[in-house]
Parts: sequence; structure tokens; C-alpha cells
Amino acid sequence: MITVGIVGGTGYTGVELLRLLLGHPQVTVTILTSRTEAGRRVDDLFPSLRGHTDLTFSDLDTAQLKQCDVVFFATPHGVAMQHAEQLLAAQTKVIDLAADFRLQDLLQFEKWYGMTHQCPNVLKSSAYGLSELNRDKIKAASVVGNPGCYPTTVQIGLAPLLKHERALIDPTRIIVDAKSGVSGSGRKANMAMIYTENADNFKAYAVQGHRHHPEIVEALEQISGQKGLFNDLIFVPHLVPMIRGMLSTIYVDLTTVGSEIDLQKLYLDFYANEHFVDVMPENSSPETRSLRGSNQIRVALHKIQANKLIILVAQDNLVKGAAGQAIQNMNIMFGFAEDSGLDGIALLP
Amino acid sequence: MITVGIVGGTGYTGVELLRLLLGHPQVTVTILTSRTEAGRRVDDLFPSLRGHTDLTFSDLDTAQLKQCDVVFFATPHGVAMQHAEQLLAAQTKVIDLAADFRLQDLLQFEKWYGMTHQCPNVLKSSAYGLSELNRDKIKAASVVGNPGCYPTTVQIGLAPLLKHERALIDPTRIIVDAKSGVSGSGRKANMAMIYTENADNFKAYAVQGHRHHPEIVEALEQISGQKGLFNDLIFVPHLVPMIRGMLSTIYVDLTTVGSEIDLQKLYLDFYANEHFVDVMPENSSPETRSLRGSNQIRVALHKIQANKLIILVAQDNLVKGAAGQAIQNMNIMFGFAEDSGLDGIALLP
Amino acid sequence: MITVGIVGGTGYTGVELLRLLLGHPQVTVTILTSRTEAGRRVDDLFPSLRGHTDLTFSDLDTAQLKQCDVVFFATPHGVAMQHAEQLLAAQTKVIDLAADFRLQDLLQFEKWYGMTHQCPNVLKSSAYGLSELNRDKIKAASVVGNPGCYPTTVQIGLAPLLKHERALIDPTRIIVDAKSGVSGSGRKANMAMIYTENADNFKAYAVQGHRHHPEIVEALEQISGQKGLFNDLIFVPHLVPMIRGMLSTIYVDLTTVGSEIDLQKLYLDFYANEHFVDVMPENSSPETRSLRGSNQIRVALHKIQANKLIILVAQDNLVKGAAGQAIQNMNIMFGFAEDSGLDGIALLP
Amino acid sequence: MITVGIVGGTGYTGVELLRLLLGHPQVTVTILTSRTEAGRRVDDLFPSLRGHTDLTFSDLDTAQLKQCDVVFFATPHGVAMQHAEQLLAAQTKVIDLAADFRLQDLLQFEKWYGMTHQCPNVLKSSAYGLSELNRDKIKAASVVGNPGCYPTTVQIGLAPLLKHERALIDPTRIIVDAKSGVSGSGRKANMAMIYTENADNFKAYAVQGHRHHPEIVEALEQISGQKGLFNDLIFVPHLVPMIRGMLSTIYVDLTTVGSEIDLQKLYLDFYANEHFVDVMPENSSPETRSLRGSNQIRVALHKIQANKLIILVAQDNLVKGAAGQAIQNMNIMFGFAEDSGLDGIALLP
Repeated sequence: MITVGIVGGTGYTGVELLRLLLGHPQVTVTILTSRTEAGRRVDDLFPSLRGHTDLTFSDLDTAQLKQCDVVFFATPHGVAMQHAEQLLAAQTKVIDLAADFRLQDLLQFEKWYGMTHQCPNVLKSSAYGLSELNRDKIKAASVVGNPGCYPTTVQIGLAPLLKHERALIDPTRIIVDAKSGVSGSGRKANMAMIYTENADNFKAYAVQGHRHHPEIVEALEQISGQKGLFNDLIFVPHLVPMIRGMLSTIYVDLTTVGSEIDLQKLYLDFYANEHFVDVMPENSSPETRSLRGSNQIRVALHKIQANKLIILVAQDNLVKGAAGQAIQNMNIMFGFAEDSGLDGIALLP
Repeated sequence: MITVGIVGGTGYTGVELLRLLLGHPQVTVTILTSRTEAGRRVDDLFPSLRGHTDLTFSDLDTAQLKQCDVVFFATPHGVAMQHAEQLLAAQTKVIDLAADFRLQDLLQFEKWYGMTHQCPNVLKSSAYGLSELNRDKIKAASVVGNPGCYPTTVQIGLAPLLKHERALIDPTRIIVDAKSGVSGSGRKANMAMIYTENADNFKAYAVQGHRHHPEIVEALEQISGQKGLFNDLIFVPHLVPMIRGMLSTIYVDLTTVGSEIDLQKLYLDFYANEHFVDVMPENSSPETRSLRGSNQIRVALHKIQANKLIILVAQDNLVKGAAGQAIQNMNIMFGFAEDSGLDGIALLP
Repeated sequence: MITVGIVGGTGYTGVELLRLLLGHPQVTVTILTSRTEAGRRVDDLFPSLRGHTDLTFSDLDTAQLKQCDVVFFATPHGVAMQHAEQLLAAQTKVIDLAADFRLQDLLQFEKWYGMTHQCPNVLKSSAYGLSELNRDKIKAASVVGNPGCYPTTVQIGLAPLLKHERALIDPTRIIVDAKSGVSGSGRKANMAMIYTENADNFKAYAVQGHRHHPEIVEALEQISGQKGLFNDLIFVPHLVPMIRGMLSTIYVDLTTVGSEIDLQKLYLDFYANEHFVDVMPENSSPETRSLRGSNQIRVALHKIQANKLIILVAQDNLVKGAAGQAIQNMNIMFGFAEDSGLDGIALLP
Repeated sequence: MITVGIVGGTGYTGVELLRLLLGHPQVTVTILTSRTEAGRRVDDLFPSLRGHTDLTFSDLDTAQLKQCDVVFFATPHGVAMQHAEQLLAAQTKVIDLAADFRLQDLLQFEKWYGMTHQCPNVLKSSAYGLSELNRDKIKAASVVGNPGCYPTTVQIGLAPLLKHERALIDPTRIIVDAKSGVSGSGRKANMAMIYTENADNFKAYAVQGHRHHPEIVEALEQISGQKGLFNDLIFVPHLVPMIRGMLSTIYVDLTTVGSEIDLQKLYLDFYANEHFVDVMPENSSPETRSLRGSNQIRVALHKIQANKLIILVAQDNLVKGAAGQAIQNMNIMFGFAEDSGLDGIALLP
């Protein structure tokens, strides 16, 4: 049994962490902080938790957090990096669900997040928490930067191609047309997010540049082991009038080798031992609702012309795209079964 | 052709007024004010208006407003009452879509809206804008207080009973179980209103007291001509995960007389000449979507036991419940055909 | 470990039973039947189950069902009663999620379901599965008729009042204004149920009579121990554009005794030992989303005048209103912990 | 004043034609047919029309249709081609909203629609009804094949590039990632279309081939005047949980010439005189809700790299994508103002 702290428990990743961790057999959540709700019972703010916890929000107190075995930061960008060093000094592990430990490139971090990194050394020794692709690093790490939701779909969708010994796709011609439910924007008093501005509506956004773009590029470089290959990648996110769910439609050009190989088999083999990655039958269409509340991520391949491949990748943006993967990483870090606390079945309908 | 000003054009009643008035054949909208968006083209904020207007938001300037024949206030409560006297002095008529001119009872106004009325004399001479029930007063008035959305459904639903020469229902036993789409809450940066807090959800709210309650009571007293009759009326509003639409399910106890009369005929006769009130066949179920964007209001009667009547009343809360009825009142005030600019058909599906 | 069969696994209660039973520690689902999908993997029809089961739909074969310890019927009305006797003869218990074992009054059954009952003797010995109110009978029964979703909310909402030794409310003046998500209509190819006919819409339905009305009346008679008391109960269901969720707004008139008693304490005491009944603080407003996927049911009291009480009751119609309560009943029948397999936390947002 | 018949008035394009035509100043709808609803008042089926028409559905009677000046077919594919010749013989013009007169390539028609064309000669003389691009042909035609919804977005999105005298894009590298609201599937009793299968969900569909694909290819050949250029075009449609609305995200590779030209100016000039095509400021993001109920179509350009262009095209699939454009074509055929009956403003929110 380990003790867990959650910093920033009033957002959607915070309450999702709680939902999952309260059912985790090897974990006790001991601290839950909030700047604005300190002193309030968490089940008063989130009645879905009534009957499941007596936790009360508290102020962020580093001394208390140091008592925990691990602390999750479900905070805005820039918070975790202010506390990481202190926690590490106390042997408390850190899993950040914001962007502080996602980008190794400090210039990119500054450019996209508008702040200077506070602990570049910690960043250097941190692991990027795409569980399936960095398991060994995560196991050894004390600080994990949990991936962005969009980058998770792109990496899972492309890794089997990029990890192959031969060049299977043209890295300069990747297009990611991504679609997300509204919970991806968090829980904020923001006019653009109100019900009546989003219901029965569809739009693209951040077409000129989204913070997840540099993360995707850096991650694909990491996966392929080659710098500078993916600078032409196109990434266009869209907003879907649904609560949870994310689908990336990824268009790639196959090389001659890529067009001759059995790609379905490649993916099945690559993910054969992965509990959470579901390679569906060829030409399937994963529905986001089939993942509602689950940590699974579904991949389906469509070869539509001799040398064109479409990869559909779907997940629950709050689970595999955020809180679920964070717990998966915790499980790896502490040697628990990787699906411990994460074996829930998606809620359909 | 009259000239029209709109004060507060950035909310949903503001943009709905614009949608309807831009298509009104006897009206030119000349001024549109906003505290926050002055200088911005309205179609930049509301792209639905692109191609339909070149209007730009301006600061509220009473001198300019005085040039208008009529000014609509689509503002928070308490704004119209600050400008009404000046405008009246300039022969500019005023239609307030907020609550400043709804309640004649100043104590109730203070209690529910938390402010002292600024122009009680204007209030006294103003008309309450339930078009079908106060047509003569509205015609003669220079200031109209446009009704709340819920009160509109209740008045239309009960007027034929209450206007009858004999007592048809027990006034102490009226229950209004009302349901509204989210646009009734307006366009505000408010966490409780964001998409993810409202989609796929249903709840009651303000069960202990809603501002429309005193308005309903005062209006029913007005309609029936009897003070103090409706103090026991129960009104419980609920929030529906839809953009527009409102349905009130009204439960009444029939008196012996009421249970013997042909109620369907009573309603058909009462509203025989009303363009916007649709008395549906007995035992019908009006759907809110059948009114989306339209100024109609549908009423259906269900006599379910010898002395129990259920009245279903549905409308688009932004049209008959707000902007549409305001324009209907303008038409009455200026002697236009009552459906001028209001003949659009509901958008279904 | 017991073996479980599910007859009719292609509807929403079927897949919800599976979702919950696959996570139940004392249960193995061995048979899942479908008339139309026999031979197909269940996770092909419901991809949410991929990775969680290898079950395949089979034809209904009574011989096979007899091998099970218990069989759930998630079928249309009238199926369970055709197989109950045979299964009982083989010591296989039966839990019917349709209406075959809900109404003891055979005439009401014929009137509302348009069929003659096939096994009135089994019906007589069956238990009505409102778990909290009939626990002893359920424990002893071999056949359980699982309650309708609406009746569950009404019984939980009124039981503390009706079980009291003194008359707390006027039984002739109960009004239930109920609202349900669309999944209550099941999974059927039906034009009235398509997305575009239900989204962004709200309406009442079955105002002239709903099958759950006689069930509510009979159940309240049972609870209060008095026949004929509730014939004037009014029940009006409405359809909410959401997937899951149900809220009943119940209006009652308090007697003098009822108006003097501490009702909040009454409810808290009555449900003090009930795991799934959540009596919220007075004047709360339960949101249906706080129950999405959970077997809990939330009750909140609003005393709005000296002698008027409003009771709000919310649940997930597919869980406490159907599959969850069915499993709760199974737990009671087999002596398992009542929350075994039912301890999931609601999915919010 | 012309007389209009509508064949197939029970679907969504049928009721949308009615909504628009009942408000058209130069049109009287005289006949409305339905195989299943003959004898029923149309406003009984569609209460949104109550108060706006007394029309009753009738059986399809060619003799009666011949009395009309023009007949719209809002029917399944294959109906219009059975009646076109007879109607033409009577000087009655035909506008088909299904696919009978969209594809000139008869083999493609047979392949994708599974039927042999019944009147290839009429097809040959018919006009393809993309109003802005084929105005002269439409004006002269007696039969118009109204475009599919997806093809309308793609043609409007690409025409300025393809009509240019020089090659601006690589025609072999066009990707159309399209998203549609559910009303695009029509009004049918179909399990895959029910609310609970579509709400809070997102998915791709028909990735391996959609009927609009050959129509897009043929249309682009027509526009560019070059056969065989667009065989590599990729088209992937997705289903959005909303009622109306369509957005196509079109990815193209610019040639050297294309990357040097002022593309925004090209589009503004190309559509300068088009009432319904709204070229938005560069880097805008058109929202589908800004077009709800309107015949406008919005285009926005995003040049994201030196030689990559993203074109966003949004419309209401039932208006510009179906009924609205059909009426626009009627206006062209009869010499009415092109926006006659089509000047409504989108319903936002």
C-alpha cells in the first residue's frame, strides 16, 4: 500500500484520478489540495464521490506532500516544476499531468507555454510517460511527465511503423486530423466553453499551432531515433460536442517497403503484450464511446490505396489521454500490475 | 420604417433580437451597444450574422439612443431603469428584456433582484409585455417590461381558466414543474454553465425560490383580478441539456364547474384569434424542437381524472420567451402587423 | 463462484449486466443468448467489451440455462414467464428485468402488457425486487421481478413516509413528474428513437397512461400496507436528451403530523444502513450525472411550505433502475455482500 | 408565382424544402407526396409546420405532378429517374435531391447505387446543381441533379484553385477529412441511428468507400476540365453527435506557383459576387452552428507551411448541402433572385 497525494483536485483530471485511485487496491489517497476549495469536502464539489471518500481539500503544503510515496500534479502548467526538487529530495515520486516534463527542448517549452523552466536538471532525468513506449525509463524514473492527450494517440498510432528497422512511411507527409470531446479543455469558467457555445456545433481550432504539436514532433523523433524528420507533420485539432472521447485520423504515405509489408500483422505483433492497446480488425472504425471511462486505446488500420494508410486511433481523453495513463505509469514505477485499478469496462451506452 | 437601438448586444437575447430584427421589414437597427465589445463588428462576434449586417458595437451613449424610435434593453437587470426616463423624455420607447419593469411590487423587486428601483413612476406607467393578455396596455405604453420565459408559459397556460367568469380551478393547488434549455442562463463565463457540466445531465435548480416565482404570482393575480390567490403556487425549474426550448408541465385541480366544462373548447375559443398561441389537439405532447427559432407557443390539455388537468406549454425560451415576444410587443406599440418579422418557421430537425 | 446466464444480451440492460457481472468477483457468466446474434462474439457487437470477454451469443437453449445458478432475463416482456417454471424445476434462480414478475394483479398485467400471464403460481411466489424494501422476500425467493426504473425512484422516494406508523402525507395527492434519459426506451430500430428526433428536444410522453403507473400504485400499496390508497396518484414521464439518467420530482402534501416531524432525520434514519441510498443534505439538488454508471440512488428533500414537500430522486436508469438492482438482488439471493460487483464510482464528467 | 410539387415529404430534406418554400414569395407548394403518410396532414407529422400550412400528404400521382411547374424529389435514390421523362414531356422541371442525376458516369452510378439508370438521355441533358459553378447550365436545364452534401463542400473549397489558369495544387495529393451531423443519414428506423448509439460519440465511417467519393472526383474533373486527375483523392467521412452541420477539412499541397500566389485574394475574387459563399478572413475557423438553418457556406484558408494549404469549409448539410441549394437552383431555373426564400439568418445559439 502506497500513499498518494493529488495536487489540484478540482479539475477533470483531478476528479478522474480520484475516481480511479479510490478503487485501486494498492493505494491510499491521503492528500488532495486545492487553492480555491481548501476545507471543503471533495464529495461536496463532486457528488459522484459521495459514499466513496471522506477526503477534504487542503492547502498545498510541501511538508505534507513529502509524506506521500507519490504525488500527482493535476494542475495548470508550471506548478509541478516548482515543487519537484523538494519532493524528490524527500524520495517522493512525481507524476505531472501538465506539460512541465513533456518537452526536453527548453526553447520549445518556453515558446509554447510562455514560461522559463524552473528545474531543467530534473527535467533531464525525468521520463516521458507514454507507458507502452518508455516502460523501462518510467520504471527507473522519479519524475514522469504524463503525455498530452493528442500526442498519446499519435504515438500509439505511429510507433509500430516508426520502430520498424526499415523506413515504412514518408516522415514528411504525416497528417493528423484530430477530434476531441470538450472535457479536453478542462474545468474553467470560460465563455467559449459554455454549453450553448459548444452543443450541436463542430469546428477546428488552433489550426495555426497547438501546444501538442511540438510534443508530437519530439516524441516521434524519440521513437524513431531520428531528429528533424517530422518537421512537416500537420496537426489539426477539432472540437466535438461530446464530453469525453478523442479520435485521431492519421494519414500516412507508405514507402515501397511499407506498402508490401503486412501492416495489420505488424501492429498485432507490436502490441501483442500490451494490455491497453487494442488493435482492431482491419478496416474497423473505433467509436469513442466504446472507451468511455476505460484506459484502453483502440487502433484500426485502413489501407485505402497501394501506398496510402489511414490509422484511426481512439481513446478516452481523460483516461488513457490523462489520468488513466498517469496511474498506469504509477503502477510501472511501483512495480504493481500495470492494470491495477485500471480494469474498468467502458460505459456503453 | 422605424429606427431601433439595442443596448447589450452580446448576449443571447441580443443576438436573437438582431436575427429577428434584421429580417423585419419595418425596422432598421441603427445602434447596438456593448460595454466590452465597443468598436468590434457584431458579425465578428457572431459569425452567423456575416453577410446580413455591417453593424459595429458602440458604447452606450444616451444621446444616440434618443435618436431611436425604440430601444431594447437586452442587458442585466437594473440597466434599463437607469436610462428609461431620459429616453422617454425624448419620445423614445423602451422595451426591457430584463426584470426592471416586470414586477409592480417594489418590495418583491428589491427582495429578488437585490436593488432599489430607480424609476418607480416609470414602472407604474409601464406595461407588462405578455402580448396576448395585455395588448391594449402595451399599445398605449411607452415602456414595456418583457416577461420572463417561465412566466410566459404559465400565463399562457392558465389564462383561459383564470379569465373565465366562474372559478374553474383551485388557485391554491397549482404546481408548475418547468424545464428549460441551457440558453436560459444567458451567455456568461460561468463554470456551472460549461458544456461538460451540463451535457448528458439533468437536475432541478432553485427549488427553494426562483426570481420568476413572484413574477408568476403577480401576473396570475393580474389575470384573475384577485390578489393573494396564488401564494401557494409551487414552481420548480429544471435544467435540460439542450440549447433552446422550454416546457412547463402545469398541474391543476378542477372545481366542479371546471370539471364539467369543455376545456378544450374553452382554450380554442380563448386563443382563436391569436397568431402565436397554438392550442394543440387534446392529449397532444408539444415537443420543444417544434418551436426552435419560432415565436409560437404550444398548449396541450390532458384531463387525466375527473378533476385533474395537466397543461403542457412549450416555447422557444429565446423567442416567445424573450426576443420574439419583445418584437411582438414592438409591433403592437407601433401598429405593425403583430407577426411582422416573426413569421419564421421552426427549425426541425 | 456461481454461474450466470443472460437471456437477451443485445439490449442496453443486457450489455449493462455484462459490464457489471464481468467485474463481479463471485460470478462467471457462462451463457449469453440472442435470437438475432447467435454465433457472434459479444465484443463484436459491443466493442466496449473487447479485452474483457470471449463470450459468444448463443441460441436460447433451456437445457443449457438449467446449468446456471441464476438466469437474468433482459428480454422483452413475456419471455421470462415462458421459461421460469422449467428453470425453477432445475433449481436455477430467475431474475427478470422485464415486467413478467412485477405486478401481482393479473388483470393489470393483461391490461397494460396485452398478454395473459403464463405462470401465475410462480408469480405468486416471486419477490418484487426493490432491494431495500423487500430484502427478506428476495433472499428467500427463487424468482425475482426486477422493478421498473420509474417505480424504483418513487418507492425509494416515498417509503420513509409510507412506512411511518402515522400518516405523514395525503396519499390522494401525490404527483410524480418524472424525467428519463433516452436509454430507457431500449435499443430498437424505431424512428421515434433516432438521434435527430431526440437531440436538443424535450417532451412529455404517455401522459394518458404509462405501464409503470400500475406498478407504482401496487408497490406503494404494498409498502404502506393499504389497498386503494393511491388511485389518484399522478405520474407524468418526460424524455430528456441524454443517454442515461432519471430524475423524479415528487410533490406531496404533508399531514399535520408530517409537517411537524423532522423529515430529514426520518429519511437519514430510514436509510442509515443502506449502501446505495444516498440521502443528501436538505435542499440539495441531485444531478443525474453524479450517478452515471453507479448503482447509487440519491434523495433530497425540499420542504417549501409548511405542508408541502418536494422529494427529488435521481438514479442511473440502467443501473439502480435496471441491471444494477438486478445484480443487487442476485447478491441478496446468494448471500454475497450486497455491493459485490457494484462498487464502481459514477463517471463524472 | 409558380406551383411546386414535392415527392417524398416525410424525410428531413422534405420537411426542410417545405420550411423554406412556405416562406418563398414566388412559390406555392401544391402537392406533397408520401407512400406511407398519404391522407395525413403534414403538420401532424411535423408540428413545426402547424400554423404555416394546410397541406396533406397524397399518393404519388404523375398526372397531378405534371400540373406543377417544378417537382422536387426528396426521395431515396432511384425514384426521380422513373418519373423524369414523363414530367419533362409535360414541361414540368425536375430537381432531384437524391443521386439519380449527379453522376454522368453510368458505370459508377451502377457500382455505387446498385441500380441501372432508367433514363440515360435525360441524365445527359441534365445539369449538376452546384449552383455557383454551373449557373448557366442550370439556368438552361429542365432536370437538375442536386449535389451531395459532402461534394458541395469539396467543390466550393477547391474550385478557385482548380479553375485557375495555372496549376496551383498537386491534384494527386488531396485529402478530405469530412465531418457531418447525424441528419445527413436521413429519417429512418435504423438501430445504428438511434440517439443512444450516437450521442456523446464520434467515429469515422465508410472509410473504405463512400458514395460521395465518385461524385467528388467527377465534379473536380468537371471543374478543372481534366479527366483522371483526382483518382488518388482521399475522402474520409466522420459522424458528429449534432443534428445539422458539416465541416470538411481539406489538405492540399501547393505547387510553386500556388505557394507564391495570394490565395486569400484568389478566393475573395472568385466568390466576390456569390451571395452564399462566405470567404472568411485568413486563419478563421468556421463553426457549423454559425450556419444552422442558413444557405450560406463558409470557407477559410490556413496556409500552414510554405506549400501546405488547409481549407476549412462549413455548411448546414440540410440547407446548402441539400434543400437550400435545391431551391437556389430552382431560383436560377425560373429567373428569380437567387436568394429568394433563402435569406434567413442562421439560428445561433
